[in-house]
Amino acid sequence: MSLASGRPYLAIPGPSVIPDRVLRAMHRGSPNIYEGPLIEMVASLWPDLRMVAGTTGHVAMYIGNGHGGWEAANANLFSRGEKALVLATGRFGLSWAESARAMGIEVEVLDFGRSSPVDFDRVEAALRDDAGHRIKAVLTTHVDTASSIKTDIPALRAAMDAAGHPALLAVDCIASLGCDEFRMDDWGVDVMVAACQKGLMTPPGLAFVWFSETARLRCGHSDLATPYWAWGPRAQPEDFWQHWDGTAPTNHLYGLREALDMLREEGMPQVWHRHHTLARTVWAAFDAWGAGNPQIGLNVADPVHRGWSVTAARFGAPHATRLREWCETRAGVTLGIGLGMAASTEPAYHGFLRVGHMGHVNAHMTLGALAVMEAGLVALDIPHGVGALAAAAGVIARNA
Amino acid sequence: MSLASGRPYLAIPGPSVIPDRVLRAMHRGSPNIYEGPLIEMVASLWPDLRMVAGTTGHVAMYIGNGHGGWEAANANLFSRGEKALVLATGRFGLSWAESARAMGIEVEVLDFGRSSPVDFDRVEAALRDDAGHRIKAVLTTHVDTASSIKTDIPALRAAMDAAGHPALLAVDCIASLGCDEFRMDDWGVDVMVAACQKGLMTPPGLAFVWFSETARLRCGHSDLATPYWAWGPRAQPEDFWQHWDGTAPTNHLYGLREALDMLREEGMPQVWHRHHTLARTVWAAFDAWGAGNPQIGLNVADPVHRGWSVTAARFGAPHATRLREWCETRAGVTLGIGLGMAASTEPAYHGFLRVGHMGHVNAHMTLGALAVMEAGLVALDIPHGVGALAAAAGVIARNA
Amino acid sequence: MSLASGRPYLAIPGPSVIPDRVLRAMHRGSPNIYEGPLIEMVASLWPDLRMVAGTTGHVAMYIGNGHGGWEAANANLFSRGEKALVLATGRFGLSWAESARAMGIEVEVLDFGRSSPVDFDRVEAALRDDAGHRIKAVLTTHVDTASSIKTDIPALRAAMDAAGHPALLAVDCIASLGCDEFRMDDWGVDVMVAACQKGLMTPPGLAFVWFSETARLRCGHSDLATPYWAWGPRAQPEDFWQHWDGTAPTNHLYGLREALDMLREEGMPQVWHRHHTLARTVWAAFDAWGAGNPQIGLNVADPVHRGWSVTAARFGAPHATRLREWCETRAGVTLGIGLGMAASTEPAYHGFLRVGHMGHVNAHMTLGALAVMEAGLVALDIPHGVGALAAAAGVIARNA
Amino acid sequence: MSLASGRPYLAIPGPSVIPDRVLRAMHRGSPNIYEGPLIEMVASLWPDLRMVAGTTGHVAMYIGNGHGGWEAANANLFSRGEKALVLATGRFGLSWAESARAMGIEVEVLDFGRSSPVDFDRVEAALRDDAGHRIKAVLTTHVDTASSIKTDIPALRAAMDAAGHPALLAVDCIASLGCDEFRMDDWGVDVMVAACQKGLMTPPGLAFVWFSETARLRCGHSDLATPYWAWGPRAQPEDFWQHWDGTAPTNHLYGLREALDMLREEGMPQVWHRHHTLARTVWAAFDAWGAGNPQIGLNVADPVHRGWSVTAARFGAPHATRLREWCETRAGVTLGIGLGMAASTEPAYHGFLRVGHMGHVNAHMTLGALAVMEAGLVALDIPHGVGALAAAAGVIARNA
Repeated sequence: MSLASGRPYLAIPGPSVIPDRVLRAMHRGSPNIYEGPLIEMVASLWPDLRMVAGTTGHVAMYIGNGHGGWEAANANLFSRGEKALVLATGRFGLSWAESARAMGIEVEVLDFGRSSPVDFDRVEAALRDDAGHRIKAVLTTHVDTASSIKTDIPALRAAMDAAGHPALLAVDCIASLGCDEFRMDDWGVDVMVAACQKGLMTPPGLAFVWFSETARLRCGHSDLATPYWAWGPRAQPEDFWQHWDGTAPTNHLYGLREALDMLREEGMPQVWHRHHTLARTVWAAFDAWGAGNPQIGLNVADPVHRGWSVTAARFGAPHATRLREWCETRAGVTLGIGLGMAASTEPAYHGFLRVGHMGHVNAHMTLGALAVMEAGLVALDIPHGVGALAAAAGVIARNA
Repeated sequence: MSLASGRPYLAIPGPSVIPDRVLRAMHRGSPNIYEGPLIEMVASLWPDLRMVAGTTGHVAMYIGNGHGGWEAANANLFSRGEKALVLATGRFGLSWAESARAMGIEVEVLDFGRSSPVDFDRVEAALRDDAGHRIKAVLTTHVDTASSIKTDIPALRAAMDAAGHPALLAVDCIASLGCDEFRMDDWGVDVMVAACQKGLMTPPGLAFVWFSETARLRCGHSDLATPYWAWGPRAQPEDFWQHWDGTAPTNHLYGLREALDMLREEGMPQVWHRHHTLARTVWAAFDAWGAGNPQIGLNVADPVHRGWSVTAARFGAPHATRLREWCETRAGVTLGIGLGMAASTEPAYHGFLRVGHMGHVNAHMTLGALAVMEAGLVALDIPHGVGALAAAAGVIARNA
Repeated sequence: MSLASGRPYLAIPGPSVIPDRVLRAMHRGSPNIYEGPLIEMVASLWPDLRMVAGTTGHVAMYIGNGHGGWEAANANLFSRGEKALVLATGRFGLSWAESARAMGIEVEVLDFGRSSPVDFDRVEAALRDDAGHRIKAVLTTHVDTASSIKTDIPALRAAMDAAGHPALLAVDCIASLGCDEFRMDDWGVDVMVAACQKGLMTPPGLAFVWFSETARLRCGHSDLATPYWAWGPRAQPEDFWQHWDGTAPTNHLYGLREALDMLREEGMPQVWHRHHTLARTVWAAFDAWGAGNPQIGLNVADPVHRGWSVTAARFGAPHATRLREWCETRAGVTLGIGLGMAASTEPAYHGFLRVGHMGHVNAHMTLGALAVMEAGLVALDIPHGVGALAAAAGVIARNA
Repeated sequence: MSLASGRPYLAIPGPSVIPDRVLRAMHRGSPNIYEGPLIEMVASLWPDLRMVAGTTGHVAMYIGNGHGGWEAANANLFSRGEKALVLATGRFGLSWAESARAMGIEVEVLDFGRSSPVDFDRVEAALRDDAGHRIKAVLTTHVDTASSIKTDIPALRAAMDAAGHPALLAVDCIASLGCDEFRMDDWGVDVMVAACQKGLMTPPGLAFVWFSETARLRCGHSDLATPYWAWGPRAQPEDFWQHWDGTAPTNHLYGLREALDMLREEGMPQVWHRHHTLARTVWAAFDAWGAGNPQIGLNVADPVHRGWSVTAARFGAPHATRLREWCETRAGVTLGIGLGMAASTEPAYHGFLRVGHMGHVNAHMTLGALAVMEAGLVALDIPHGVGALAAAAGVIARNA
């Protein structure tokens, strides 16, 4: 007998729960794309997109997904044969490196494993080793969606500066924008990539690249920048259609407008506070479950290095998979699969899962998902520590 | 700082959470109401409406709300001056009595208070006292939305039979249909009233009266049955428009069709099991909170007499109101106000609340609401027992 | 081979085409009905409902349809045995009379047939004959949805005044409100009935009764006013729920809010001008088709007596039915059936149809429907005059 | 005074009118993108996408627009320095050529002007001249959205075969797929590009490239095929996410599913017939308006060379612009601007417009738009021939 009938809750690390307001805004007929209200509405998007990223720089929008965003960043940053230094803390950092390499870019990867943060000494050393300054840009994830490791971007900037290296700094905020604190200009980021389906609370279909004036000037001649990926005309078009190199993604634009309104109404500091608190709520539950049960635990030991939008955890194979199935079929909660957390052998895969807590998510959603996980642990007889829900509720009580 | 941004959860005892499927089905342009697909679709509703009620009898649909349903039942059951015996276990039973009285019906009320079930001995005695059989019908709520007391309908039927009284039995299932087990024919019910916005998961706007062939024959000449309320043409129309005495409620019909599909897909026994389990989940949390804290407690002592769709509880004024406010503004959960639970003096009002768990509701929604209440109790420093969430999760674990 | 695939156009006299804005506004989850934003939003409806009716008087809203509106008006206006004078110019006037009679009201009908306007001399005479002033109210349709005849309300008021009779004046604007000019206070109307699914552009489910202070005072003791129909608590409630005698029709209220916004944005004089022009566009086409073809013609000879929201016409049986079928199945336009235009013998029925042009309707929709009718006349070889479309387009050209 | 309030009709050549069914299907929460129903639903799309294109070959879907589709085709067809022969009959053919050139492809353009079809003798000659077979592919539009010129694809194939040249044939069906007859396999097409927002009736956001096994084999080593554009993994993925190189465009997929259902239900031959008839309806009106008025006329003289989804026409500057403004602001119809029809001097621009009749369009929509144009011509005193609407209705009458 199932208790799943009711609102499903998709607690995966993206796409996230789309707000009803956003879906409603997207439910409308096609507008004129040459004249009229659409043009004015689109003009209102750019300041808010800058606000969300903490920048006064440029922003290019793409009809695409996160991988499209990577390719756009790569295509503008590099010409064939130029070199990237990629800092990887999980599968998505590695994937970005693969994307760059496949485009003909020379890629050096510093791989910090699946559970450890970036070691900035190694970064600084690598940059110092690059005496000829062949490395044009350092690429890193802010939060790797697979491992949920967060990279300390100001510390990375400091390491680059300490090395006296002129490389540009490019950050993938796909899993973190609109969730984790991010200040592009203050933190000295040159290029930032995101997509709409996570913290920006819009159905998948848009990618974004923010870039500084410095990046624009240093990357003006990239021979990888095809018409579709070139960020120049998108950010500073002569004609409206150049924002998207062709037909505008009309209905997504209405959705994005509504999502940005929601972020403005709540205010970015409050948005960040909410995500940080909900993340700590999840962590508190895992701390309790894992007490005395080494098979259960968070992937990232130090809270400072954990992202606020997604939490990767281990449950001891095959418990993670069993728990995910129970939560979905019995209680209406879909958790994220473990991704790239180990060799892709089956047993390892079944030992990890991820909880998404990004975007349109609040106290009862998060607590409800944790309580369902607790019920599943009991139902499936998976050994676990007690007090998880009281601990989680306590975090909410102290921070709401 | 609030943690409410995200999906709001309206956990009041109606209107309930409307499924996305239902809202989507209602989002369509006007159909032809004289010919075509609408006629065929409407024909499919009646068998399912009978299935939900457990009857092979008649069903009349009204554009109206629950009060409209009462008035429809009254208008068909009675002529002016005829007599009703109303069994009241809360505000809504009393309101039905007031509705009948205001229509010119003679009403005798057996009031069992706000926390006690119907005493069938008193009912039997009252019927025996009516030697002249002036009482034409006995009216009662199945579950009173205000007190959450459930009436044992088979026991009531038995009491009426024991008294040898020919009165018809009319039951208000507004708060229970599609949630609590109900079997109209098996239980000897003649008239049943419901509305669409609770267990039937459709936005407010439709009321229903099911009636047996016996009721039809005995009530054929009610002088209160105006054209709008008369159940005959609605249940057995010559023309399509007579189903609603005029224009059909087109978009609600699409929503109702979808909601009935959902009930059919899940199956009524499973629907009832789900509500029963979720109710017990709520009760388990209250049992823990109230242990050693007499100010916190369920309104109905014996689980047998509690409805499965709504739970009324006391928190000690003004804690109920403070807790409701905290849950809504800090965590996105709206709980129901206490209704008719005490003299309408402010302090009493602030000592009660209700949790709705009716319709489109599942494990994570219910657990999430309870976890938020727990967080609120902690945040507001309201004394309460421990272990509520673990107990609630345990009910889910054992029954999912 | 059909050319119907594409947007269907429902050109029947109600329900009318629901604007996308209205449907979008209705597509949302249940709100709290005891506290919060809904209460404030509802407060904004009443001034606009008064504005649309041209009154500073009272307004009661009902979950119901137009027949419910009639019953509400009857129930408040009359006690059993009191007398109504009904002026009928089509099926709906007669139906209102039947509704009143079935409720126990004494009804005198002045029937002016199906194609002629009210004869005010007869009305004045009837009122003069009622020396004892037993007639409590005069009931009439503003525009009869079946015949499309419009009643000159100021002239009716003048006739009543000339007769020196104190009867109240009650007008059914179901088919005309938000389409035809109407000024309740200026025209001396005491009671006005409408529903939401025509000029108010909202899916069926709401009825309204506006009433003057005079009517309120004169009708305070009607013994037909049951709790559901009594207009007093609805117009001047102590508690929010009394606006609807129970649960609010939440989603319809959002739709109504949006529809009233649209009327405000356009402005009532412009709304009336639009409907008048579109009506004349339809009439011009019929004038051309009917030239030399006596089988084709408008039901109402004099434009002064034609409603602006619906046009009844004859095509010579069975041409009306054949044309309707062709337009719907071949071209995507659904026209209204003839209603109550003749004895209900089949041949007569097949000789009438109605074109709805009410609410969310504009130049291209009306011209498109007429052009499709022209194509159907040609395809079906129904003799008709030429130049209809050029004439229709000419009306648009001169008035847009 | 405007008569525009009502349903707007966007009669531009894309995005087209999105069916309510499609919008409704897209209005839903995020699904799981790793497991569950989405995977099964997506599997159902490919056979229907093949059916629409008339092929048993491969199909790759992109989150992108039409320009993205061009870039995808270019990236897979060519390595840097390889050569394309582009046949241009309007702005979009030229734009595809520019896209290819900007990517480093050598491009030879045969430009046939803005009002003339492809001259196949010139094509054959050009291919014969390419004795070394440096031309890897011939690129052409099926219907150029700007000029509305249609290219006879079987005739092109014949010319290529006659020249004995092994070049691949790549066709842009962005403006024609789902409107104009197209049979990829029968006509010997190797690569076909389309997007979703025209005949496929889905909001902008998806592009498609169909490709034959021959094309797959001949283009396996293109060095322009970046990870995002490479068609191989999209058409034959190992993992579900590779269909889109990352996150799936979830909501668009639901919309596309519904749109394909609509095409299947109507049947492609009937879809083509409908578009052909509606196109001829538009042409008939223009023939009448232009009779004796040389300033008014269709851009393409011979009906054989006109696309069935869009019609470009001249009105004599500034009449086209004045007429467009009148139709939109007075009557609710938005016509397409002239695009690339002349030197970009203002007067020329104001002398052209386009009528879109693609996708979800039927008899009353097309006739309504034409009737509004007629009204505008009258209102603006633009000289024009008579009888346009009767002629247009006649086409419908004879073909519905």
